[in-house]
Amino acid sequence: MSEFERRAQVLDAKDVLAKQRELFALDDGVVYLDGNSLGALPRHVPARMADVITREWGELRIRSWEESGWWTAPERIGDRIAPLVGAAPGQVVVGDSTSVNVFKALVGAVRLADEGRDEIVVDATTFPTDGYIAESAARLTGSRLVAVAPGDVPAAVGPRTAAALVNHVDYRTGRLHDLPGVTAAVRAAGALAVWDLCHSAGALPVDLDAHGVDLAVGCTYKYLNGGPGAPAYLYVAERHQRRFDSPLPGWNSHADPFAMTPGYAAAEGALRGRVGTPDILSMLALEAALDVWDGVSVDTVRVKSLALTDFFLECVGAYVPEGRVACVTPRAHAERGSQVSLSCPDAPAVMKELVARGVVGDLRRPDVLRFGFTPLYVGFADAERAARVLAEVLG
Amino acid sequence: MSEFERRAQVLDAKDVLAKQRELFALDDGVVYLDGNSLGALPRHVPARMADVITREWGELRIRSWEESGWWTAPERIGDRIAPLVGAAPGQVVVGDSTSVNVFKALVGAVRLADEGRDEIVVDATTFPTDGYIAESAARLTGSRLVAVAPGDVPAAVGPRTAAALVNHVDYRTGRLHDLPGVTAAVRAAGALAVWDLCHSAGALPVDLDAHGVDLAVGCTYKYLNGGPGAPAYLYVAERHQRRFDSPLPGWNSHADPFAMTPGYAAAEGALRGRVGTPDILSMLALEAALDVWDGVSVDTVRVKSLALTDFFLECVGAYVPEGRVACVTPRAHAERGSQVSLSCPDAPAVMKELVARGVVGDLRRPDVLRFGFTPLYVGFADAERAARVLAEVLG
Repeated sequence: MSEFERRAQVLDAKDVLAKQRELFALDDGVVYLDGNSLGALPRHVPARMADVITREWGELRIRSWEESGWWTAPERIGDRIAPLVGAAPGQVVVGDSTSVNVFKALVGAVRLADEGRDEIVVDATTFPTDGYIAESAARLTGSRLVAVAPGDVPAAVGPRTAAALVNHVDYRTGRLHDLPGVTAAVRAAGALAVWDLCHSAGALPVDLDAHGVDLAVGCTYKYLNGGPGAPAYLYVAERHQRRFDSPLPGWNSHADPFAMTPGYAAAEGALRGRVGTPDILSMLALEAALDVWDGVSVDTVRVKSLALTDFFLECVGAYVPEGRVACVTPRAHAERGSQVSLSCPDAPAVMKELVARGVVGDLRRPDVLRFGFTPLYVGFADAERAARVLAEVLG
Repeated sequence: MSEFERRAQVLDAKDVLAKQRELFALDDGVVYLDGNSLGALPRHVPARMADVITREWGELRIRSWEESGWWTAPERIGDRIAPLVGAAPGQVVVGDSTSVNVFKALVGAVRLADEGRDEIVVDATTFPTDGYIAESAARLTGSRLVAVAPGDVPAAVGPRTAAALVNHVDYRTGRLHDLPGVTAAVRAAGALAVWDLCHSAGALPVDLDAHGVDLAVGCTYKYLNGGPGAPAYLYVAERHQRRFDSPLPGWNSHADPFAMTPGYAAAEGALRGRVGTPDILSMLALEAALDVWDGVSVDTVRVKSLALTDFFLECVGAYVPEGRVACVTPRAHAERGSQVSLSCPDAPAVMKELVARGVVGDLRRPDVLRFGFTPLYVGFADAERAARVLAEVLG
């Protein structure tokens, strides 16, 4: 047993989150480092979904909209996510995809901004969909789109800025951006700060309320383990809710949806972000999946996440020949999310072989190997094994 | 046994669709006449979903995007729906809610229309969400919204009309609108015809291609039995696809989504209507549910639907005291969808009592009792019993 294997054993033995792994359906033959793309299945979800499908849909049918709480699921589940992103209740609503929520948030932000502000600043390194949707939001609201590196956002915002959309953690590099600092700068310029939390929520503290974030969106199928394509969420800070003017005012966001009146009147609160009939099966799988967070503090998750990525980087440094890969994820804790991205010219072939050998990460073309560390179910022995197998493949 | 009970027996014995009922999880103690709101559960769906959740998500995890065909589900399932709405393959894509698809269709239609056309005509009796979303689409595209009764649409369209949005079947009254005639009038005026098929698809022939419809949307949880909040679909006629310019250009509609380039380039074909990551659980439940259509012709469904609603109206006429209810659904076959709506002043109390006695319809405030007839699983004895229980409750 190598020094690193021994250290992994000690670290796993001391890990206060180690028992959470038993809540997930995982195969000990595989090191799953792709929970930043699709979270693993919590073991209790299949039984819950069997009940939803067989009894709630199959037996109660239409009655379930009321009796099984289907109708209120978007805001109820929003309130389950709220503590994970540092939001007081009543500000998060679940539904639609991340892209659709980016659209609601950006058009909504432009409408909340002061008259005459006609620029949307967007993180130029963003996950592409945010940029595409920001362009559409700009076109439809008659705004100008300004794309800058996240670090340049504070300098780019000014009297014409309506809103700035920034990713909390970069999907490719794993870089953690300065949410408190950027939010403060955007708000000091009189604009609204809109954050995409897809790669941070569930992996590290976000603290939306504490940092005065205006609007935020995030997905639930990565670190929140909600299942493939599980619905995303929208956060609208309480202070903005009365004036939040959604570009997708579907009947689910009406003050009295079953009055079915021809005139639209928006509901109060977070559910103003709802649109159409919620996708109940995907939504209730997410609700069940959130049970794995009971009693877990995001601060504890963050401590383990940093220890895991530190240890993985140390193992890679020790096992992988110098110069064979370059680390594109920042070493500084304050700048690191919960993934490690390594670049190498033959990344596609390397990732294919890693997966064949039971180490599942993913590839971001052309040359990035991504390894996501989900502290609820990845351990230190996993990190050591992944680095060891990587070295074998690269050797 | 009454004359109507005897006739119901004969009609059920001759019903070529009668055996389809066995494919659904139904309780013989209940007459389920709310399939126009939430379709019943096909019996084989729970086992399929157990496999999707336990094996595809739980064991294959991220590999399922490719190996289990998750990534291509929106267009694959669209092609399963296509024959039910009279569309050749490659024109229907599944995903998002009906409201979101109305938004894509209307903004897309305005952008497809000739320069200078700045009016959107909308069915004033529409299901409210269509009107709310049409208003948002008009506001964001600088168009004027013109709401008229569906019968007045041909007279209302003119040289300034970009698009007209009409419901094929009215959700409240069950009135079937003249899709071929209205489409022809809208197109003759140089505008685009956009249809909402929520209350017709799966209950009667739609024939989108044959009638030259431009764009259409529909839901899948009513007559298509896809499950609560199952994703909706968007039809973009092949002739418009190259110029279809979605207001929600998420990364799933990119020509090369995994290149993750900052510049947007739309995919070819129906999948240009995709937005973000599809909600796989809801989507694959729908895919499985569509199996009940194997070997079933929509024309046969229509014949039975009309026979069922005729028979129900006849029973109501015989059993219910004169003047106690008024039928708001047209008697003429050419103007009737697959539901019967009856108004009476005490409708809320009446529907509550009907449900308590095992006849499940629903209420549309303030005074409409809705009874949906889903020919795949409702029989003539159900229709007779519903009318009989209704007469008891009203008596």
